[in-house]
Amino acid sequence: MSLFEKYQSILENAIKALHERSFFAQYPEHPSPKIYGETADEDGRKKFQSMVGSKFEELLQLDPENWIGTEESPYMQDRLNISYPSFSVEELINRGREGFHQWRKVSPEERAGILIESLERMKVRFFELAYATMHTTGQGYMMAFQASGPHANDRALEAIAFGFEELKRFPESVIWDKPMGKFNIKLDKSWRAVPKGIGVVIGCSTFPTWNSVPGLYANLITGNAVIVKPHPGAVLPIAMVVAEIQKVLDENGYSANICQLAVDSHDKMITKELAEHPEVKLIDYTGNSVFGSYLEGLTGKAVFTEKTGVNSVILDSVENIDKVAQNLAFSVTLYSGQMCTAPQNFYIPESGIKTPEGNISFDDFAQKFVDNINGLIDNPKAGPFVLGAIQNKNTCDRVEKSEAAGGKIWLKSRSIENPMFKNARIATPLVIEIDGSNKEEFSQELFGPITLLIKTKNTDYSIELAKDMAINHGAISCGAYTTDPVIKEKIADEMSLAATPVSFNLVGGIYLNQHAGFSDFHVTGGNPAGNASFTNPEYVIKRFTWVGFREPVSS
Amino acid sequence: MSLFEKYQSILENAIKALHERSFFAQYPEHPSPKIYGETADEDGRKKFQSMVGSKFEELLQLDPENWIGTEESPYMQDRLNISYPSFSVEELINRGREGFHQWRKVSPEERAGILIESLERMKVRFFELAYATMHTTGQGYMMAFQASGPHANDRALEAIAFGFEELKRFPESVIWDKPMGKFNIKLDKSWRAVPKGIGVVIGCSTFPTWNSVPGLYANLITGNAVIVKPHPGAVLPIAMVVAEIQKVLDENGYSANICQLAVDSHDKMITKELAEHPEVKLIDYTGNSVFGSYLEGLTGKAVFTEKTGVNSVILDSVENIDKVAQNLAFSVTLYSGQMCTAPQNFYIPESGIKTPEGNISFDDFAQKFVDNINGLIDNPKAGPFVLGAIQNKNTCDRVEKSEAAGGKIWLKSRSIENPMFKNARIATPLVIEIDGSNKEEFSQELFGPITLLIKTKNTDYSIELAKDMAINHGAISCGAYTTDPVIKEKIADEMSLAATPVSFNLVGGIYLNQHAGFSDFHVTGGNPAGNASFTNPEYVIKRFTWVGFREPVSS
Repeated sequence: MSLFEKYQSILENAIKALHERSFFAQYPEHPSPKIYGETADEDGRKKFQSMVGSKFEELLQLDPENWIGTEESPYMQDRLNISYPSFSVEELINRGREGFHQWRKVSPEERAGILIESLERMKVRFFELAYATMHTTGQGYMMAFQASGPHANDRALEAIAFGFEELKRFPESVIWDKPMGKFNIKLDKSWRAVPKGIGVVIGCSTFPTWNSVPGLYANLITGNAVIVKPHPGAVLPIAMVVAEIQKVLDENGYSANICQLAVDSHDKMITKELAEHPEVKLIDYTGNSVFGSYLEGLTGKAVFTEKTGVNSVILDSVENIDKVAQNLAFSVTLYSGQMCTAPQNFYIPESGIKTPEGNISFDDFAQKFVDNINGLIDNPKAGPFVLGAIQNKNTCDRVEKSEAAGGKIWLKSRSIENPMFKNARIATPLVIEIDGSNKEEFSQELFGPITLLIKTKNTDYSIELAKDMAINHGAISCGAYTTDPVIKEKIADEMSLAATPVSFNLVGGIYLNQHAGFSDFHVTGGNPAGNASFTNPEYVIKRFTWVGFREPVSS
Repeated sequence: MSLFEKYQSILENAIKALHERSFFAQYPEHPSPKIYGETADEDGRKKFQSMVGSKFEELLQLDPENWIGTEESPYMQDRLNISYPSFSVEELINRGREGFHQWRKVSPEERAGILIESLERMKVRFFELAYATMHTTGQGYMMAFQASGPHANDRALEAIAFGFEELKRFPESVIWDKPMGKFNIKLDKSWRAVPKGIGVVIGCSTFPTWNSVPGLYANLITGNAVIVKPHPGAVLPIAMVVAEIQKVLDENGYSANICQLAVDSHDKMITKELAEHPEVKLIDYTGNSVFGSYLEGLTGKAVFTEKTGVNSVILDSVENIDKVAQNLAFSVTLYSGQMCTAPQNFYIPESGIKTPEGNISFDDFAQKFVDNINGLIDNPKAGPFVLGAIQNKNTCDRVEKSEAAGGKIWLKSRSIENPMFKNARIATPLVIEIDGSNKEEFSQELFGPITLLIKTKNTDYSIELAKDMAINHGAISCGAYTTDPVIKEKIADEMSLAATPVSFNLVGGIYLNQHAGFSDFHVTGGNPAGNASFTNPEYVIKRFTWVGFREPVSS
């Protein structure tokens, strides 16, 4: 049985799910021993520990020029001392070219089988991957498991499914039979989906697999070779993914050069040299806007970016203010605001928020919100695990700077103790009040645990500000609370023009930070937060070119 | 009955045809009195004649700032003196914005009905349109009828069909129902296909409708407002299309500002001002590469270009050399080489072309080719009608310059008499021999009736040159003649990497210049000849953004 036959039903279900957009998950998100095995967690932790201080020797990339690695655990604030093979850009490109010319001739079915097999192999390493993610990104255990493991795998499968569908969208060949009156002109026509060449996937430090696998798998399903350039601070999780892909390729007779890892270090970054190389035709990037916009400006390449933005919450009217405050407190605390979808700017009318019991004032809401944050972070069974650790100490500096910048401080950022990691780099959410007229104070992304409560004239002005931020500075998510259908439609309409998805009236166990595979399009491509959306059709079709051939039917 | 219901079966057949890619045509290409009516031709001619020397008053664009028009007939080398309403860029944008906010809220079904109705209205004006096209572009009667009328209509319908399919590809709303163990999280989710804004469609002087209607209709079906900026030398044909769209919009209660015509003149072009306007989010362009590349470099816009290229013919081996020479002679003579798909560089091995009767030498083929061209142009029943007239006198200057540039001249360009138009600007094909080693002499587009016979070492080198030209200078078509399946696959594979469609072994009444709607993707987007292909999925999906909304299901 071929790998395609083995996984055909997974692929078909995934393609169906793409169109249904209702709940679908191939990989269970709960780290349950019943699903993953009684010893899976313990085994994974030990495997991760055995990697610390060692060479990562799983990659099938022979003859490295060097072994390098600079990762540090945000939980231990100490080096992991894991080293990876490194190569010059020219060598990576030479190998990638070789891989490309082999891979481009492989059928979509064969590619899909190999790629799904690699996901199945990752599945048995989800716990190991979770620990690797915790100790590079600072994510809490649960998020590290879910985001890097099952959710990333689902996003990868989504890209495979969409790519496969697009590759099969037109017939491979037809007879074109045109009546000309007394005779017909008949042509044999055929089409090939020609991949673009070598793609570079540039990873970020906070979601090293979740943000990188959609582009990686989208490139591979459409026949391109890939060079994965991880963030020097978060290599291990994606190195494991690349290693599994290489092993499956190799076992099936294909070159590991089809998917390479390109590790660099902060003092000698190779990203620009890679991106600018004329043979690199595709770039996927997650990270800061300055570098993202530079990449988007490169000519002769298809570039897919997820950059930064200013995410808003519009508060107009609610059913239950306590549930809202609780939900939003969790949203800003989760991974200390280090998610690209985390809300930052909260727009609250100066007259307060309407509730069935009458208006709740700006100050009363602010206090409720702060109380809920404190309740969460001071709960020793929740706080440390929801917060995780701060990936980059620059984020701590940004928090300090914001605290000193003026504005009424409703809640200072502080550190709390993580019972398992005494040295963890922790910063709890800072909450500041700003007046809506001081627009320059809230017109930028403040990455990390920084929340701005912005007092506006009224909800119309809140909407105007949220739209303005999205159009001019980008936005990936928006939360809105209103019980008024007219205002709701106005928010939906105005934010749609700013290409920002809106989560209305979320309370309970679902948060605006969460974008689900096979249902939510993550980033829309319509505002400065990014030019790509995974996984919409554009995300895959720009990775190949339809080329047609025709010839008179031989009589 | 709504317009959508009226045209639903046309739309459904068109969507089906998109996927079958076999022969499909909604609008009959033959100017037959049986199809179009006994007096249709005569009526159309008279209507066109009545427009000459007049104001074009069909547009529903009120209060023009001026009436301008500079068109000249290449057949009469005299001004048409037709004038059109003109407006400042700011006024066009203001009106376009108003149109956009109305049109974006119209359903895909309603838009499709209105747009197909406009095509049905054009159908009864095909003859009028043909004369308007002849006397602006210089096309022969048959080409003017087919390209501007039925073929353009089919291309427009193709864009409508693809846009409609993409707009309906995902559900408008679903319930997302995620099992969480003891309970489910249920969200109402919905999505909107949000159009980008105002699109500008920049026309060319040679195919004023065929090259412009795909982008025009792709913008409109996806809910954008459009400003059509025709070439100052070829306004009338597309003015008629815009007028029909405006009339249908108006009759159905929509603003004519949804689709405006923006006429300018050579001495005061408004294209850059329009293209650079921040509210213009979409640009469609056909024309020279320098301006096209400038447009592609504009940030914050989705740009679709068809630029210039160097189209090749690779001659290796043939079944019947006479049929090949005849087919290619027609290809270079048709509309005097002023088609973007016309072949320019013919690569012929120095050892000649293999035939069942032995090799035919380079010189013998050149002579056959020239004899066929002469036979065609000297046939008074064919020559003037196939050649048409030269749209722009710069093309005549280019022919003269090429003739003087060196290289063995196999056939001089000359004028012939057009029995109907004594003043027609005519230039027959120039055929020059160039050695394959003088690459700089054939590494550029020589727009117009200029054919280069290039002597190469062998077919492998011919393929290398054709691929090199396409990758570095662009190519929209490629002809190849080989009876060897190994060489055929090599040509297909190498040209596919240069994103160039290949027509193999064409003889008889089908020519490599012709790209059929609903089957051939015109331009691929994969080489410098253009970044767009009509109509592939990318051509429509970049014109809108998917934006999602979600909310807990109210219990």
